[in-house]
Amino acid sequence: MRACQNDSTIFSELTVANESSVASANSKWAGYADQLAQQAQTASRALVQISGERKQKWLHLAADRLVQQQAFLIGENERDLAKAPEYGLSSAAIDRLRLSATGIEKLATALREIAALPDPIGEVIEGYNRPNGLRVLKTRVPLGVVFFIYESRPNVTIDAAALCVKSGNAVILRGGKEALFSNLALYRVLQESLRAAELPPQAVQLVEQTDREIVGELLRQRNRIDLTIPRGGKSLIERVAAEATMPVLKHYDGVCHVYVDASADLAMAVKILQNAKCQRPGVCNAAECVLVHADIAQEFFRLAEPMFAEQNVLVRGCELTCSMLAGASLATPEDYGTEYLDLILSAKVVRSFEEAVEHISRYGSKHTDAIITKDVGSADRFVQQIDSAAVVVNASTRFNDGGELGLGAEIGISTDKFHARGPCGLRELTSYKWIIRGEGQIR
Amino acid sequence: MRACQNDSTIFSELTVANESSVASANSKWAGYADQLAQQAQTASRALVQISGERKQKWLHLAADRLVQQQAFLIGENERDLAKAPEYGLSSAAIDRLRLSATGIEKLATALREIAALPDPIGEVIEGYNRPNGLRVLKTRVPLGVVFFIYESRPNVTIDAAALCVKSGNAVILRGGKEALFSNLALYRVLQESLRAAELPPQAVQLVEQTDREIVGELLRQRNRIDLTIPRGGKSLIERVAAEATMPVLKHYDGVCHVYVDASADLAMAVKILQNAKCQRPGVCNAAECVLVHADIAQEFFRLAEPMFAEQNVLVRGCELTCSMLAGASLATPEDYGTEYLDLILSAKVVRSFEEAVEHISRYGSKHTDAIITKDVGSADRFVQQIDSAAVVVNASTRFNDGGELGLGAEIGISTDKFHARGPCGLRELTSYKWIIRGEGQIR
Repeated sequence: MRACQNDSTIFSELTVANESSVASANSKWAGYADQLAQQAQTASRALVQISGERKQKWLHLAADRLVQQQAFLIGENERDLAKAPEYGLSSAAIDRLRLSATGIEKLATALREIAALPDPIGEVIEGYNRPNGLRVLKTRVPLGVVFFIYESRPNVTIDAAALCVKSGNAVILRGGKEALFSNLALYRVLQESLRAAELPPQAVQLVEQTDREIVGELLRQRNRIDLTIPRGGKSLIERVAAEATMPVLKHYDGVCHVYVDASADLAMAVKILQNAKCQRPGVCNAAECVLVHADIAQEFFRLAEPMFAEQNVLVRGCELTCSMLAGASLATPEDYGTEYLDLILSAKVVRSFEEAVEHISRYGSKHTDAIITKDVGSADRFVQQIDSAAVVVNASTRFNDGGELGLGAEIGISTDKFHARGPCGLRELTSYKWIIRGEGQIR
Repeated sequence: MRACQNDSTIFSELTVANESSVASANSKWAGYADQLAQQAQTASRALVQISGERKQKWLHLAADRLVQQQAFLIGENERDLAKAPEYGLSSAAIDRLRLSATGIEKLATALREIAALPDPIGEVIEGYNRPNGLRVLKTRVPLGVVFFIYESRPNVTIDAAALCVKSGNAVILRGGKEALFSNLALYRVLQESLRAAELPPQAVQLVEQTDREIVGELLRQRNRIDLTIPRGGKSLIERVAAEATMPVLKHYDGVCHVYVDASADLAMAVKILQNAKCQRPGVCNAAECVLVHADIAQEFFRLAEPMFAEQNVLVRGCELTCSMLAGASLATPEDYGTEYLDLILSAKVVRSFEEAVEHISRYGSKHTDAIITKDVGSADRFVQQIDSAAVVVNASTRFNDGGELGLGAEIGISTDKFHARGPCGLRELTSYKWIIRGEGQIR
């Protein structure tokens, strides 16, 4: 039992450094943020009394309505696309911004898939009786209010709203200004369907103002917002984590390694490396670095060379790598630990298993790291010693993904250890509550 | 899958407010904090390779040594006691500071009990095969490094070290300066036994310097410290939460309610209220407020009156309470929501179940709230609608406690929803890791 008697003498021992991070600021948006957060909290209290069936109904209504209102959605999306050059968006960013008829169909399918997932709320995580007759249950409950900050991909508006509300949470969405018209249009569809399904409309709110100060104000609302999820580049996430006064679910980056052990099946290693690096280089679970045991390095690079050439992979390696692999250029110290998100791969020949573990501990980002080995001891030690959200033996790093691991849709992949780690689906958007039933027991 | 392609345009959208909270400060203690955190991280990496048996051995060695070195420990404790007047400690605080022979025996027993608890590390939380043959395990792993901040009770030094290391974490302890000599002495015992058990001695480190800036420096070490646990008064915890750049496991206060429903067994209600309020008034799961349904208020207060008199409970109630209960004084608005930690109880007559829920939502601290009722509908709705770490039906609020719920020793009771909620034992000091094994699978 934690005793709570105050030791007044200790209070003087702490500096009061960041009071500003919790004090309510007086910016012109404080009231607006306050209202959004308060409405979300009220909606979240209503949501705990709403059945899984009603939430499913909402998801199906929203899916139908997205398809019905396709013309309207595409029209509003075009207004954003027209402004894209003004914001200096790259052609890849414009691609991600675009809502096509096929894209809208996919969104509707995603909503129906989320509807079909098991409802996490009410699940009994543990239950037992105590010797004194108390019946103890630990049951799954929503977190409450989620603040979701993302960039210019409008499909995230739909995914995030669906996952949060399905898991019983109210959500405040803040998308990038480049997608404002698209988001407002999608938001209208979500609102109409919330009303049609008799869910509290404020279960989903979109920050309609684009002033940057609003994000800061919302990040101060720790009494009303239970979790913030930033989704975007590392710099965005770092800033959110620094400013937030509530927990943040995040990953900064995915510097994923493939270590080819001395005993590896080298053909398998090449196939896995190709998949991990090339199947979708722009995502966080793609490999960024290959470590190769010296004993088999020559042979491995001989086998990998045609794959690198065929897939247009640029290799930046250590001196040994360069001596063994035609076309490899010498890596700078900055290459190790870099998340290229591109067809570039850093490479290093290591003299031992320990050197590989050491390298990953130093340069990795605790996201996903793989070993290719036939040796059960190496596999076990790798699994034990590598401190990453997912550790993979003889398979591609690309499997650290909610869908691939059977969680269904995911809201992100966490590299944190507190609360959820790895892919975060519906369950990871929940907490639990202890329910203790007795018939008069006292201590 | 979360795509990580950067949308560079969004970075400009966020203010850079609290950069100071993450930037490495240049105070004279930055280097010292850095060293402590680095050593803890190194020790935590060694700890993941150490068997449960070795950790048990350490706990038993430490228990034996505490008893053997009793005279030394009591002598050092006396040096703190001698300085207590200088620090202006109350007699209650001096009591908590004192280490007696019996107290040391109890500490040794606590260590042996923790040794006997199941080792949480390595537990398979989930495990299944995917259609493509991948074998997926979600296994329990340590958090890494815990920074534990507490006040002047030296026994916490032992409890915290034992729980953290048993759960595979390295811990940095920062006790109150009022207990410095006691803590240094206990720390010496822990160090000797760590060496004797061949555990990394830096698995437990004590901040030996009392300068207040060190806490701030350690709270900036988010890359090396995985979790901070402050244990003390609300003001200490608020400051730690505001300054910390890593997750914080905490509760601010325990404003626990007992709601006596219209259908309650009133004799049971009086017995439970007595236990919840009086058995140990200074702890966080003691009741601070009773809500009584109007239909049975007169009868309830008639039954409760002799108990209040006998137990010296001062009741501060609404006008109706005062009209029904001799000796009750009129509550001010501040009384509701106050954690007295004393034999004082606020009271309110409510007209309905809904009013009780509303009152608890408004004034409670989401710690522990109880309903006394014979009505299954009221019980179910209370359990659903009250958003507290523990919701109790027909039993005392005092049961929200690690020992009482069968968790064994606890490191605190969390009112947060992110990560652990309610009593936190060994398991709540852990995270998990995804282990994915295949034989060459790619996407």
